[in-house]
Formats: sequence, C-alpha cells, structure tokens
Amino acid sequence: MRRYVSDAAELTEEYGIQIGRWKQYRDLGPLPFDAMWCVIPPGGSSAEDVHPEVEFAVVTRGTAIYEEGGQKVEVPTGGVILLDPEQRHVIHNPSPVQPLTILSIYWMPRDAVAAADADSAAATTDGAGRD
Amino acid sequence: MRRYVSDAAELTEEYGIQIGRWKQYRDLGPLPFDAMWCVIPPGGSSAEDVHPEVEFAVVTRGTAIYEEGGQKVEVPTGGVILLDPEQRHVIHNPSPVQPLTILSIYWMPRDAVAAADADSAAATTDGAGRD
Repeated sequence: MRRYVSDAAELTEEYGIQIGRWKQYRDLGPLPFDAMWCVIPPGGSSAEDVHPEVEFAVVTRGTAIYEEGGQKVEVPTGGVILLDPEQRHVIHNPSPVQPLTILSIYWMPRDAVAAADADSAAATTDGAGRD
Repeated sequence: MRRYVSDAAELTEEYGIQIGRWKQYRDLGPLPFDAMWCVIPPGGSSAEDVHPEVEFAVVTRGTAIYEEGGQKVEVPTGGVILLDPEQRHVIHNPSPVQPLTILSIYWMPRDAVAAADADSAAATTDGAGRD
C-alpha cells in the first residue's frame, strides 16, 4: 500500500500553473497511463492546452471550470472530466481563496498507438529506422 | 468534454458497500483501465477484498482508512492509494456523519496479461481452444 497526496508532491511552474509529474514517484511500478497533479491558484487559470492524449481529470480539491470551444463545465471536488485528444481547453479556478487541485491521468489513444507501431514496423521493414 | 460525478451515478450494494461501475457510462470510449465509484456509509467498512488487479484509488469525498496486513493508512480527500495485486484490504470510513466516496481505478498487471496471452496462444496452437 503506497499513498500519494498532492500536498507532499514536488511541483514546478508549467502551463501557467503548478505541475507535479508522477514520474517523481520511484515506487509506482508500471501504470497504464501517465499522471500529474495540477494546482491552480485562487482566481487563476491555466494556459490554453491541447494535446494528442486522452485526458481523465479528477478534481481533488476545490471546484474546476473547464472551458472548451465556448462551452464551460463546472466540476466539483471528486468529479471527473474526460477530454478527447486535441480538445483545446482552459481550466479556471473560480474560488477567490482556495487553490484548485486536479489529478490529471492521460494516455495516448489506442488508435494512435497502433498507427505509431505500424509506422515503426514499416520503417524497420524499409530499413529506415527512427529513434 | 464529458463530466462524471458520483452523486448522479447508479449504485448497487456489493462488498457491503455501494458500488457504481463505470460500465454504466455509454459515452466513455476505450479506457486503459476499469473504474468504479465506492460509497461507504458513515462509520462503515467494506467487506475484506482481494483481487488480481492493481488498484489505484482516489478518495473523492471524506477520509478513508485503508487496512492491510495489520497496517492502517489514512488517505484524505484527493489522496491516492495504490494497491498491488492480491493485497487483502478493508476500507473504513471513520466519519460518524459523512459518507466516504472513492474512485477506484483498476487493471490487470502487464505480466498477468502477457501470461494469459501466452496461455491463449498455446491453447490455440494445441487446438485446445477455451472460452
């Protein structure tokens, strides 16, 4: 049994917010996803973000407002938001006093992994290996 | 963007607690894990549980006490506990008033999946197919 809490995590400034990548934990073992803590200060917002991974975000403290394509969705503590690849999004912390903390879990979609594997196999067959 | 919250989930009685399996959500798309909400009433405990999956549990409301092999670990709201396969565990809700809610994410470890694939391939080669 290993316990992980955001208050004890090492955080760095990225995307205009604080990020704690789970790569910092040496005892995790293999996970079928990557993960990071995101801490957004009171009244703050993340920089706009867009990425090829599916994102499964759990609000672990405070209330988040996710904005995407003019749509805004409020997610309370304990709620989850699921973002498809390439969904351009911003996260807002509407609280004037409380930091917002999110556990973001993300992975490359299976189709993209299969395509990359096929590319890689084709490149190997061609003798045109990449790294 | 799709939002999921435990308060709106269908729950059933299992393991002495309330369970909301994420299979109820038809719009999820493929995830690299299974998931369920677990709701433990004030002062309640889960039945002892042991399973071959790795379990990654996020406390989404209240404080959990995880007990395993005589060890007890307290996990606050927003904290994560990671359980190895076959770790026999019980979850307690120490609050006399507040339900405890957990988002449990779980998957078969890679070694076990590889072994099952090898078994399946061997069975196919033998002509001794199983289902």
